[in-house]
Amino acid sequence: MTQLRFALAQIDTCVGDLDGNADKILQYAHRAAHGGAQVVVFPEMTLTGYPIEDLALRRTFRQAAWDKANWLATELEADGLGDLYVAVGTVGTDHALDKPRNRMVVLHDGTVWAGYDKHFLPNYGVFDEFRIFAAGERTVVVDIDGVRVGVAICEDIWQDGGPVARLAEEHIDVLMTMNGSPYEEGKTHTRYDLAVKRAREVDAPMIYVNQVGGQDDLVFDGGSFVVDRDGTLLERSPMFMEHLGFFDLDTDAEKQTAGEIAPMPDPDEEVYTACVLGLKDYMAKNRFTGVCLGLSGGIDSALVAAMAADACGGHNVHGISMPSMYSSLGSKDDAADLAANIGAHYDVQPIEPLFNAYQNQLQLEGVAAENLQARIRGVIVMAYSNSLGLLAVATGNKSELACGYSTIYGDAVGGYAPIKDLLKTRVWELARWRNRAAAAGVGIGGLRIVGNEQGDPGVPLKDGVMIPVNSIVKAPSAELRPGQKDSDSLPEYALLDKVLAAYIEHAHGRADLLADGFDAKTVDTVMRLVDRAEWKRRQYPLGPKVTALAFGRDRRLPVTNAFRE
Amino acid sequence: MTQLRFALAQIDTCVGDLDGNADKILQYAHRAAHGGAQVVVFPEMTLTGYPIEDLALRRTFRQAAWDKANWLATELEADGLGDLYVAVGTVGTDHALDKPRNRMVVLHDGTVWAGYDKHFLPNYGVFDEFRIFAAGERTVVVDIDGVRVGVAICEDIWQDGGPVARLAEEHIDVLMTMNGSPYEEGKTHTRYDLAVKRAREVDAPMIYVNQVGGQDDLVFDGGSFVVDRDGTLLERSPMFMEHLGFFDLDTDAEKQTAGEIAPMPDPDEEVYTACVLGLKDYMAKNRFTGVCLGLSGGIDSALVAAMAADACGGHNVHGISMPSMYSSLGSKDDAADLAANIGAHYDVQPIEPLFNAYQNQLQLEGVAAENLQARIRGVIVMAYSNSLGLLAVATGNKSELACGYSTIYGDAVGGYAPIKDLLKTRVWELARWRNRAAAAGVGIGGLRIVGNEQGDPGVPLKDGVMIPVNSIVKAPSAELRPGQKDSDSLPEYALLDKVLAAYIEHAHGRADLLADGFDAKTVDTVMRLVDRAEWKRRQYPLGPKVTALAFGRDRRLPVTNAFRE
Repeated sequence: MTQLRFALAQIDTCVGDLDGNADKILQYAHRAAHGGAQVVVFPEMTLTGYPIEDLALRRTFRQAAWDKANWLATELEADGLGDLYVAVGTVGTDHALDKPRNRMVVLHDGTVWAGYDKHFLPNYGVFDEFRIFAAGERTVVVDIDGVRVGVAICEDIWQDGGPVARLAEEHIDVLMTMNGSPYEEGKTHTRYDLAVKRAREVDAPMIYVNQVGGQDDLVFDGGSFVVDRDGTLLERSPMFMEHLGFFDLDTDAEKQTAGEIAPMPDPDEEVYTACVLGLKDYMAKNRFTGVCLGLSGGIDSALVAAMAADACGGHNVHGISMPSMYSSLGSKDDAADLAANIGAHYDVQPIEPLFNAYQNQLQLEGVAAENLQARIRGVIVMAYSNSLGLLAVATGNKSELACGYSTIYGDAVGGYAPIKDLLKTRVWELARWRNRAAAAGVGIGGLRIVGNEQGDPGVPLKDGVMIPVNSIVKAPSAELRPGQKDSDSLPEYALLDKVLAAYIEHAHGRADLLADGFDAKTVDTVMRLVDRAEWKRRQYPLGPKVTALAFGRDRRLPVTNAFRE
Repeated sequence: MTQLRFALAQIDTCVGDLDGNADKILQYAHRAAHGGAQVVVFPEMTLTGYPIEDLALRRTFRQAAWDKANWLATELEADGLGDLYVAVGTVGTDHALDKPRNRMVVLHDGTVWAGYDKHFLPNYGVFDEFRIFAAGERTVVVDIDGVRVGVAICEDIWQDGGPVARLAEEHIDVLMTMNGSPYEEGKTHTRYDLAVKRAREVDAPMIYVNQVGGQDDLVFDGGSFVVDRDGTLLERSPMFMEHLGFFDLDTDAEKQTAGEIAPMPDPDEEVYTACVLGLKDYMAKNRFTGVCLGLSGGIDSALVAAMAADACGGHNVHGISMPSMYSSLGSKDDAADLAANIGAHYDVQPIEPLFNAYQNQLQLEGVAAENLQARIRGVIVMAYSNSLGLLAVATGNKSELACGYSTIYGDAVGGYAPIKDLLKTRVWELARWRNRAAAAGVGIGGLRIVGNEQGDPGVPLKDGVMIPVNSIVKAPSAELRPGQKDSDSLPEYALLDKVLAAYIEHAHGRADLLADGFDAKTVDTVMRLVDRAEWKRRQYPLGPKVTALAFGRDRRLPVTNAFRE
């Protein structure tokens, strides 16, 4: 009987930070050895961070990564961990093609073992790997104390054929994979189903180690796991936290013994936590400790402020109320209440004197005058950002961005937009979830997330309410002219969001939308709004691909696109 | 003896505009037939426009393109052109993979002939084709009245092996290629050398038809040509204009007879014209007739205003002088002189009252106060844009954008940045060239360019000067604090631009830059400026890929990048 203990090191890396990533690998290798593991597996491109995009093309960076991998192997041995097998991801070089490779190396006995290169290079959605890497061609089975360990990297298990199909012929004892799989709602189940299929294919248990943390505009959710060849879940790490899990392989057993199975969050908690983690890591990796944002009293800025407080603490949130002549008293109260609830800094900067100063010179009317109000607010938010060193966060949601209900250089200013991928109806749901969680004792900063692995309950909320109920229940309004309501310009959000999901996310054309059961008037209104919004965004891109990113990379369309369905 | 007359239809298409592109194809097919051609060749993806990016992935768009190709074939026959062979580019579908293809079809006898699909899909620099298309696998030789015509699309001729290598075995009489090859300085010669190599390889003359016009942030320069198998240039179309060239193939002749050879522009004229064409077509394709911009009296805004006047006429240019308390009298005069020279609208909007209104509330200091001035100007430029329906153009050059000498939401606002890919030293050179051309009689709008194929000399310039000499010769300054000069913060531009070219465009690391002969102090200064500027841009991207686009896609780096060489 051969037994082998694997450690699943679900860590949060930072792109380009070779020193920091190597230090963390070292620290987790120590913990793994201390926990009795013979093998420790890290996520895809651990040492370099992921995704590294065209940084991989810089020769100097590849050289530095290679040097660091060697340093790490030496350091592990010097620390008495030479016997441990440490599987880390890094960037390699195909010297014949002078192209980078997405590589797994195994550090052992003070050396960097010849590695495995990813075969399937995803080049769709948020992925551009075929652009950057040369594809691997070999399959690799590592012999560890007589155990045959087959390896694969992320996309290799999502495609039929290729390395996994070849490993099926190799009588392996376990399939060990490292992954950088970005969060999508519901993806956990997709990953399990896939893993079960692959475990059956190779007739061995499969280990799935995923990255955790925010990187640029992506969030990686962790949730590493092990499944047996019969589909039994043997281990599951928590989502959104760094974690070291263990799995004991017994090569003689027909069925493996299950270990720790972390519970799954509910769907609203999952999405809310993903948004907070994205913001929190964006701040950490870009060296910000605080944020500033406009607080209008509306639901979008209230939810973003709550997320920011959960990410960096209420005392690091600077809320700015910027009332105009059209702002209702209720709005100002709601903004102040929210700031008080989360313990944020709160300033009032009326925009009327500034608006009047511009109008003395410019005499603007209509939409130009509405945009002017939004842009004065943008200048004020950026003034706070510049003078206090804060990250400006934008508060736009996906519904309004898709429909162009937003002012470029106005309410759209900011370095990060935490809810840009949430439709408006989801914004309301998450606000309600956060208040329920507050009532149940989840204080400010009390989410289970990277940096709060121990489950600190956070700062308790007065009356157990985080987001003022009035901000959730009142009719949405931009308050840029007297009595304005979103529903003057847009269909009701309950309907709008359904059409947007079909048109944008599922790429349904006009005929499809009618077949989906939407009425022609609504379909034509929404298509016109979205197409016009894309056209408006295209006017101010300074580079074409900005446009699609503005609402979440669902569509990566060209700047000039005269096609109308 | 078999003779066949080819027409080279170098046209300017618009992405997504199936109707407009089809109408233009029809019009050029008539002209080709009228000129006695039996075959007419259009650029890559003529019908859909190019590059179409993820628009290709929309099923509804592919269906519409297919319908339009069939309509076009029918229409050609109805017009009596059924005998003509019309080679157009379009999007196809690989039904097995449900993926688009980059396709050439030949329209003849009222039908769409089975086409040829591009084999090599470029996925580097500005290209993302592997992301979008499935690769073709077949080579195609079209038999036209007994003449064997081998075909290829753009990148197919840039790679060794593949379809051209296979055509070399097929005893073809001519190699006919359609291209969408973006402009780069000096690329004309690279294309010739390549074409000669391929003509030798297939032992037949080669036809190279290229797209012309601006599309999003790319400019296509045209310059279509034919080379003989011995390297003789047989035809050359002008750059930057739509054009119909002809080539008579004699299959029995050892050497073909040369036709029209258009002259080449000088290097400064070439770059200047490329910038104007990019702006002109961006306006046309996004339905703008005028532009607005801040006129500071400096060389950058002066050159951009001159380019804008050449693109849309001086009377469609709205120059706004926005002096602060730190603006010199000379600067205001230079701005007014420039506006008068080009016949632009000219308004003066002092920013001091607005600056004071903000400072009453905000009391900003240092860089925050400097940025405030730039952002007030940004709000004013956008107010003109919104209220008059003008395209705001940004005036930043590549040197200052690379070094972060620019304010986001301030001087960086705009929908198009005509000189963002020009280093500062080149800005001066182009300004001098434009004045020389003005003295030689090239009036405003008098460039030979799409829309001015007949060479209208344009509106003559008073005294033959377009750009005030003072704007060219004075020391550059942002004028955001008293006595400020660019050289306080940056190395002299003559040196800076050389280091930037090496570090950014040629990806030289620190050791390379020292080996290039730059001194360590300069190298460290420039590297620190560029890295810090990237970090600053990364703070406000709202999506990661914005950063690299800000200075011309040389580097497509991730947002968070802690790596330092």
